[in-house]
Amino acid sequence: MALPATVQWNGDARSGSLLLLDQTLLPARIETLEIRELDALIAAIRRLSVRGAPAIGVAGAYGCVLALRAGGGDAALQRLADARPTAVNLRWAVERVRNAAGGNPDKALAEARAIHEQDRATCQAIGRHGAPLLAGAAGVLTHCNAGALATAGTGTALAPMFAAHQQGMRFRVFADETRPLLQGARLTALELAEGGLDVTVLADNMAADVLRRGWVQAAIVGADRIARNGDTANKIGTYGVAVLCRAHNVPLYVAAPRSTFDASLADGSGIPIEQRNEDELRQFNGAQIVPKMAKVYNPAFDVTPASLIAGFITEDGVFRAAELAGWLAP
Amino acid sequence: MALPATVQWNGDARSGSLLLLDQTLLPARIETLEIRELDALIAAIRRLSVRGAPAIGVAGAYGCVLALRAGGGDAALQRLADARPTAVNLRWAVERVRNAAGGNPDKALAEARAIHEQDRATCQAIGRHGAPLLAGAAGVLTHCNAGALATAGTGTALAPMFAAHQQGMRFRVFADETRPLLQGARLTALELAEGGLDVTVLADNMAADVLRRGWVQAAIVGADRIARNGDTANKIGTYGVAVLCRAHNVPLYVAAPRSTFDASLADGSGIPIEQRNEDELRQFNGAQIVPKMAKVYNPAFDVTPASLIAGFITEDGVFRAAELAGWLAP
Repeated sequence: MALPATVQWNGDARSGSLLLLDQTLLPARIETLEIRELDALIAAIRRLSVRGAPAIGVAGAYGCVLALRAGGGDAALQRLADARPTAVNLRWAVERVRNAAGGNPDKALAEARAIHEQDRATCQAIGRHGAPLLAGAAGVLTHCNAGALATAGTGTALAPMFAAHQQGMRFRVFADETRPLLQGARLTALELAEGGLDVTVLADNMAADVLRRGWVQAAIVGADRIARNGDTANKIGTYGVAVLCRAHNVPLYVAAPRSTFDASLADGSGIPIEQRNEDELRQFNGAQIVPKMAKVYNPAFDVTPASLIAGFITEDGVFRAAELAGWLAP
Repeated sequence: MALPATVQWNGDARSGSLLLLDQTLLPARIETLEIRELDALIAAIRRLSVRGAPAIGVAGAYGCVLALRAGGGDAALQRLADARPTAVNLRWAVERVRNAAGGNPDKALAEARAIHEQDRATCQAIGRHGAPLLAGAAGVLTHCNAGALATAGTGTALAPMFAAHQQGMRFRVFADETRPLLQGARLTALELAEGGLDVTVLADNMAADVLRRGWVQAAIVGADRIARNGDTANKIGTYGVAVLCRAHNVPLYVAAPRSTFDASLADGSGIPIEQRNEDELRQFNGAQIVPKMAKVYNPAFDVTPASLIAGFITEDGVFRAAELAGWLAP
């Protein structure tokens, strides 16, 4: 990829900085944010300069270094962990670094680097396990962005596509544009096209038509949090894609690392759903889209019941929902 | 409504002009186009300054006056009829005016005015027949815009909502924003809010979530062409809404005048689907959304099979798909 790294730590723990590719500007502009303060990172996470559950986790891990070197204690780490409520990776990563560091920024950086490296390896394993699911597929559907821009590696949902393509499989990828913030159009299309894959962007409301035409044999999406029974929170619209896939007998797979599974939740009803600012829908690039007198509904995520998910592609293999509890057991 | 008329003829046949509210600028700007030449009307229809099958029909009827007074013959009328391929009302209206006028612009204007008046009455009848379907509904879902801006009256899909509201029923309307051109966000929300209804705009991919939460008890959409068996072409995304409604046991109604039914087609497979310019998806208000290397799919319509449609709300009453052939028989 011609793009800079999604997340990168530059320097040592005491004077180094966190570099984030500013995803709000893509594909028009490639700019990197240099972050030295915790509050700047929290703001960047909130406005989705860095997004995607695994990437937020890695950024959060490095964020602990920023917090600890500034003398921030548990309260600071908690603010970081709470920057976005739905993706569980952020909470998981902050917790892990906090436990490993014992307040020491150098130890925090070492642990963050370990999380970073682990995420890279996890993406590779997800790609390896998921690629065979695409054998013979003429088309694959995805929603939002769960690629290199959402992780420290080649992605979750996109990793099997990259791996399959590298193995010589040829297929079309259909990328929902993913309103309101267009991560599919802006990010997924960019990554896949730069990787040499054949990608077609469609408005979210066109996915049903593409499925009906028989152009798609599998769908793969990422996840922000998965309950023990397999209920999956992911970008708003994923649930609709799942219902449409079921109606057209197309298997929908969820690709996610172990760190996205929340073993403390029996099912999806306990997953908090972030409601985002109305202006994401009301305005676009300075234009007023929705009249002021009308209301707006803008949830960031929905929950897809496990019954609509054909399998979970993880670093340890592909599981059915019923197999998750065993895999997750300590 | 504070808005000017969607379509209006101003003056006599020889020197008058066609006034179109430019819907591409709403809700930010209210501007009226004054059209005196056929080519200007065809361009306005193509870029959706006037849109919605019934409104295009009325505009096309007046367009015959422009064509005939400039000495245009059948070739000119055919170009007008072909300005957009999917909505059958345009072809129907041009044909009707051509037959009535015999080349005479004054007779053409009289027939166009009759079509205009008939559309107004039809909307009222659709509202009257459709309103009872909303009894007890807490929420109604609609897609695209099939309201006053799509007709010469109070709309097709929106007419039952306006009528029910006038009768004292209170319910929320959920309006899909309807990418790529956002007719739901820009037009439906504007009309309903100005009419005093409680309207909430959502991204197209959020409709499934709203259905799952049980907020919607009925969906009503318009149509661009309906085959004899009830297969219905309407704005892209309607088919997906229909599948989602079925999965949540919510009835989906299609509201349309007789002139939207194409009795010459046995089923929806014969309906031509307009593919629109890629830039509608690639760009927004000057911003590049989709990277150049990626492809784009941009059909304007999809076809919903009759089996997913609970009923057809027409000026003559509400019909089931199986009843249509009898109603349509000459």
